[in-house]
Amino acid sequence: MKGAVLYGPGDVRVETRDDPTIIEPTDAILRLSATCICGSDLWPYRGIDTSAKPQPMGHEYVGIVEEVGRDVRHVKKGQFVVGSFFASDNSCPICHAGYQSRCVDARPIGALGAQAPLLRVPLADGTLVATPELPSDAMVPSLLAASDVLGTGWFAADAAAVAPGKTVAVVGDGAVGLLGVLSAKQMGAERIILMSRHADRQRLGREFGATDIVTERGDEGVARIKDMTGGLGAHSVIEAVGTQESMMQAIRSTRPGGHVGYVGVSHDVALPGRELFFAEVHLMGGPAPVRRYLPQLIDLIWNERIDPGKVFDQTLPLEQAAEGYRAMDERRAIKTLLTT
Amino acid sequence: MKGAVLYGPGDVRVETRDDPTIIEPTDAILRLSATCICGSDLWPYRGIDTSAKPQPMGHEYVGIVEEVGRDVRHVKKGQFVVGSFFASDNSCPICHAGYQSRCVDARPIGALGAQAPLLRVPLADGTLVATPELPSDAMVPSLLAASDVLGTGWFAADAAAVAPGKTVAVVGDGAVGLLGVLSAKQMGAERIILMSRHADRQRLGREFGATDIVTERGDEGVARIKDMTGGLGAHSVIEAVGTQESMMQAIRSTRPGGHVGYVGVSHDVALPGRELFFAEVHLMGGPAPVRRYLPQLIDLIWNERIDPGKVFDQTLPLEQAAEGYRAMDERRAIKTLLTT
Repeated sequence: MKGAVLYGPGDVRVETRDDPTIIEPTDAILRLSATCICGSDLWPYRGIDTSAKPQPMGHEYVGIVEEVGRDVRHVKKGQFVVGSFFASDNSCPICHAGYQSRCVDARPIGALGAQAPLLRVPLADGTLVATPELPSDAMVPSLLAASDVLGTGWFAADAAAVAPGKTVAVVGDGAVGLLGVLSAKQMGAERIILMSRHADRQRLGREFGATDIVTERGDEGVARIKDMTGGLGAHSVIEAVGTQESMMQAIRSTRPGGHVGYVGVSHDVALPGRELFFAEVHLMGGPAPVRRYLPQLIDLIWNERIDPGKVFDQTLPLEQAAEGYRAMDERRAIKTLLTT
Repeated sequence: MKGAVLYGPGDVRVETRDDPTIIEPTDAILRLSATCICGSDLWPYRGIDTSAKPQPMGHEYVGIVEEVGRDVRHVKKGQFVVGSFFASDNSCPICHAGYQSRCVDARPIGALGAQAPLLRVPLADGTLVATPELPSDAMVPSLLAASDVLGTGWFAADAAAVAPGKTVAVVGDGAVGLLGVLSAKQMGAERIILMSRHADRQRLGREFGATDIVTERGDEGVARIKDMTGGLGAHSVIEAVGTQESMMQAIRSTRPGGHVGYVGVSHDVALPGRELFFAEVHLMGGPAPVRRYLPQLIDLIWNERIDPGKVFDQTLPLEQAAEGYRAMDERRAIKTLLTT
């Protein structure tokens, strides 16, 4: 098969890789209906978190089960399934508590390379959730979004304790931030302030439920949020970038006793203890336990209550993955879907 | 009146200060039944967070209302009252959410110097909670503990989401850590692991409800907690020290999805973003909103369900405050009560 492989900064190639096969009896092999490029893929693409050897890319996936290992009980050949970017057994105490991305046996899908037509998914029964029937083609992008970007935005909103009547601020207008807006809207937030300075992202943010846009960043952005909330700060803040500036912007935009849900993969961040102490905000974040939310998210998509697939504003054949990376890197695309 | 004043590192003097008077119409003047020395008073005593000019000390207090300003509606002359170390209006949105230590009009009692026979308490109606009747002398130490050290331990346990069936670890065997143990016990924790290497504190910890003692610190301490929890870590961890080592010990002792409640006043702490991201624990802490808990804590003490006053293992007349500071600094005393 052909799959996307990162050779070094800015150097993505689509080249022949071995077809995956069942290795462990709990594996499944999927024929992917679609895959995509994640904002977090841009870190190694930009030369951060690089690997010494060529690295198969991609961790977002939906598709048809083609084969299952002999110990797979629930996932069946022919089903259309959605999985998370971490495989999990969904049975250990950590999974039971809802933190499947930190399962005692968690396996990163990224290491397997989902930007390809075929994918081996470990711990298939714990990881994959089937749709009620085969979906229409039109629904595939939204189901694909559930695999990571929607699940991550949803987790961020949940970690930020979004609830009816609350004011929510969203730091980061990438696909995760935008779907954090959608999630906050679904959870009943009264006011959703998207921090963005890009017209196309602002437009999609408003479509997903943002009531206000703040274009200022850093301390000025914090001052605007304070102005808009009677000097107090937002109840809930979603952080979807992962830098020192964005984390501090999120913490400082939150009122005392409020909640920060942070999902931007943390890079060169050090949180000052004293400021955090006196900020007195709840912090929760990390790699999203998407598996916890998949049944609910699939249900919302299946019943056309949400359309998160709108974050894909570019669709390319897998062979043109390199152009997809370039477009996202240059912010010409919010998120690129790759057809297989 | 005579009051304790810090002149510089290690230099506490009890000297004549002006008697406090009503300044704002929402003030009350208390005649203190007892006051005490806080672990946090040791920071400036040790030369950290010092002030350029002599600094009246103390922020923990209980006593009889001697006078109230003309706008005080609920607090009455002659009542026995307990207050928090932050005065608060108890009516702003932040107070309503339960974070009175971050009230929009919060006033630190420490600036007023509660190690004295008389104290002016601002925002009396929002700050002070009266006991049902005048307490017995024997009950005064426990009520005094509610003013900060118990309220802070209770907040830490609450912030760490302690609940029935959970395993709790406590980092720090000072008075706050020990009362964190007591609080966790009251909240129904199944297992309470106190990290301590001092026999007297271990003994009191066991009396308050600790089921296990861990004497190792740092990474070794973390490894012990992991060993005792099936490799997962504790559900809830109370941090009651405030150093980089203690914060990392707390975070690393917590299972993914678990909760850290941190109340040690943070000194030279920088939390590494990437480790925090992948730890995936809830963090909540800061100056305890003691006012939130005072009615419940007073009720538990009044009905002799808890006896937090046991943390006072030294009682001195106010005139000997300097010896109290020395004893706590040298860890000869857990906590020193000062009679006025």
